[in-house]
Amino acid sequence: MPPHPQPDLPDPAHHDVDSMLSRKFGREVANYFSGSPLNRVSFLRANHDFITKALVHPSTSFLLFNDLAPLAKDPTQLAYVAHKDVKPLIGENPFEKSEEDMIKEYNSAITLPLVLFLGLDEKKKDGFEHGIYKGRPFFAVDVTPRGSVEKEANGVIEAAKATGSTFIEGRMHMTLNAPEAAIYAQARALLDWNARNPFCGGCGQPTMSVNAGTKRVCPPTDLSSLPNAQGGATTTLETPRERLACVTRKGISNLCFPRTDPTVIMAVVSHDAKRVLLGRQKRWPPYWYSTLAGFCEPAESVEEAVRREVWEEAGVHLGRVVIHSTQPWPYPANLMIGAIGQALPDGEKIHLEHDPELEDAKWVEMDEIRQALKVGTSGLGEPAGEGYVEGGLRLPPKTAIANQLLQAVVGGFLGESPKI
Amino acid sequence: MPPHPQPDLPDPAHHDVDSMLSRKFGREVANYFSGSPLNRVSFLRANHDFITKALVHPSTSFLLFNDLAPLAKDPTQLAYVAHKDVKPLIGENPFEKSEEDMIKEYNSAITLPLVLFLGLDEKKKDGFEHGIYKGRPFFAVDVTPRGSVEKEANGVIEAAKATGSTFIEGRMHMTLNAPEAAIYAQARALLDWNARNPFCGGCGQPTMSVNAGTKRVCPPTDLSSLPNAQGGATTTLETPRERLACVTRKGISNLCFPRTDPTVIMAVVSHDAKRVLLGRQKRWPPYWYSTLAGFCEPAESVEEAVRREVWEEAGVHLGRVVIHSTQPWPYPANLMIGAIGQALPDGEKIHLEHDPELEDAKWVEMDEIRQALKVGTSGLGEPAGEGYVEGGLRLPPKTAIANQLLQAVVGGFLGESPKI
Repeated sequence: MPPHPQPDLPDPAHHDVDSMLSRKFGREVANYFSGSPLNRVSFLRANHDFITKALVHPSTSFLLFNDLAPLAKDPTQLAYVAHKDVKPLIGENPFEKSEEDMIKEYNSAITLPLVLFLGLDEKKKDGFEHGIYKGRPFFAVDVTPRGSVEKEANGVIEAAKATGSTFIEGRMHMTLNAPEAAIYAQARALLDWNARNPFCGGCGQPTMSVNAGTKRVCPPTDLSSLPNAQGGATTTLETPRERLACVTRKGISNLCFPRTDPTVIMAVVSHDAKRVLLGRQKRWPPYWYSTLAGFCEPAESVEEAVRREVWEEAGVHLGRVVIHSTQPWPYPANLMIGAIGQALPDGEKIHLEHDPELEDAKWVEMDEIRQALKVGTSGLGEPAGEGYVEGGLRLPPKTAIANQLLQAVVGGFLGESPKI
Repeated sequence: MPPHPQPDLPDPAHHDVDSMLSRKFGREVANYFSGSPLNRVSFLRANHDFITKALVHPSTSFLLFNDLAPLAKDPTQLAYVAHKDVKPLIGENPFEKSEEDMIKEYNSAITLPLVLFLGLDEKKKDGFEHGIYKGRPFFAVDVTPRGSVEKEANGVIEAAKATGSTFIEGRMHMTLNAPEAAIYAQARALLDWNARNPFCGGCGQPTMSVNAGTKRVCPPTDLSSLPNAQGGATTTLETPRERLACVTRKGISNLCFPRTDPTVIMAVVSHDAKRVLLGRQKRWPPYWYSTLAGFCEPAESVEEAVRREVWEEAGVHLGRVVIHSTQPWPYPANLMIGAIGQALPDGEKIHLEHDPELEDAKWVEMDEIRQALKVGTSGLGEPAGEGYVEGGLRLPPKTAIANQLLQAVVGGFLGESPKI
């Protein structure tokens, strides 16, 4: 495969809006995995005229994932391929038919590789236009060899590897440049959601992807003779068979849409605002600590989830809670909501036995946090920065919202001037 | 059924922590549906000794739901029943066996009514104690007549109605007192999640509820002869049959845990902070407007979701976005994340044609918002307050986070002093 257009490399301000903001309105913290250069134009996903034009435009970039590992030039840069490179797997145009016709012709025995529309990079003037919408289109394709397209998928994978690019496994969050980290996160989250939900939670029958990878529906009929897609000999019927009734076909059901799990992560300051509460898990290397975190429960505000988790994990009672910023975390589908909370004057005593998730929790002086933010940060288990002395506090890197929350706390968030 | 202990009636500050806060740290906005008086003690749900003791304690309150309609004395107060009243449906103790044994004896043809542990009301000194944890236990039971317990469920429903209480259908959010609204929201969200997900999204087989109603697992075996629970004659096997493999049984899967859908709702101010952007949907009565809102997408920060939705729905470009507060919204499983955003100086032009969801959007002067907050608020379609003049702006009531966001904007949030 020939070289293909690549997005710009790291831009400290992530993208236009942020750099405008930092000039005009003061800084807003944009966490790693946010700040995508793409406009999702979400309302155009169901427009098959638009999506077809975008798919075959010469400027269009396709990001490939094999079992959630993205194709990359190296750990800092994604690699992209062109339409002709994925055509053997996805066909000339998987969006040729309307969603209505795709559902009518649904056959659970045929594997349709997931083709996900990510958005338009409006900064790239490569000639793609659809009315007032302009920019380079980006797609992601799931090339994991499975089902009826195993052979074709392996062919695309081999051709991609032959260009010198690699499918990088594991978590890429410490290395990818910031704008591409956001593109990767969007693609990974949606491919994973599709792969995790091949069946309908409402009725147990196989589902199909529509709306350019962002929705799954439970079709009322099936051209496969087999009642579900879990293997066995199947024949294709001449007229589709009716499937069992499903509640998701009546009106709108949230089961049809991607799932995102809200989580809370919080820097907790003491009542006198002189110390910060940190905790550590048993499996971490020595001296490593971070802010506490946990999942939001149903029908709980973020502020309540923060108070509950801090009490359950560390026994500390919080007063006021303020939300600082948020971070997408595509492992698999979390939205990290970062908050700063303050302990009640008589609620600072640490108690680890309610929900014994933490090996330790402790109050740390602001100065020790400041020092660790300078010399003790890195990815978990990686070496610290220059000046670090063995035994000193270790903290997460800048790409983690925990680090940003601690920076806010030591940097004067508690006494800062108006937010807007 | 005799009268049963009831939680306290409306407390303007919702609960202890908030009233301490308002005294000591200044006000934090606690939105309707948050502020539950219950401590969820989530780490005790899997403790069958605790949950059994809580279930049968004489102080324990059971909230009943029939097809998501809660039993209530009137639209402002829930009604509760005692253990003996639900025993004909749930049995003496549905938590008698360990989770492990329940999974081993799983039979997809037997309906186990959902019994959900909600938490402890620690203010109620009724004598229930488990180590250091004290307070009146609260449970919710799904009494919807279905499956193999239809007759027993109908019996419990009829007995409950005979006391003069009613299962109130529809959305109760305008009428219930605040502490009970939070209890109702927690119960409704979890009962609905269980009812919506009888099958596994990963493999299509029936799932079962564990962890006192807060988790669903995909058992490896089944004592029912039928491969899925969608009807037909079934016999009970002597030794359980193996089911198909499922990915959710390997390690931890988010599919086993309740789903919460994060949404954004935002008061948008003009660049000069003198006007607020409001929108209206076609189906609303005349003069009704509200803040814009929409679902977060996968791998998008809250701040990005706010900017995307405002551009998609109204064409307005935002600069800085600050999160204000959050609100659980159990219809069916939303977490409303309320934000305040400011338009870019050259981004204020309204354009409704990107994603034509709104019938209208307009910039409204602060004074008009102030006036409408005084006289023009109510539930959708209900009469306005005293002093309202026909043709004036109508806005959502105080129970809606939209109202709280607008109050914050007109009340000086833009120029306020430190958040903590």
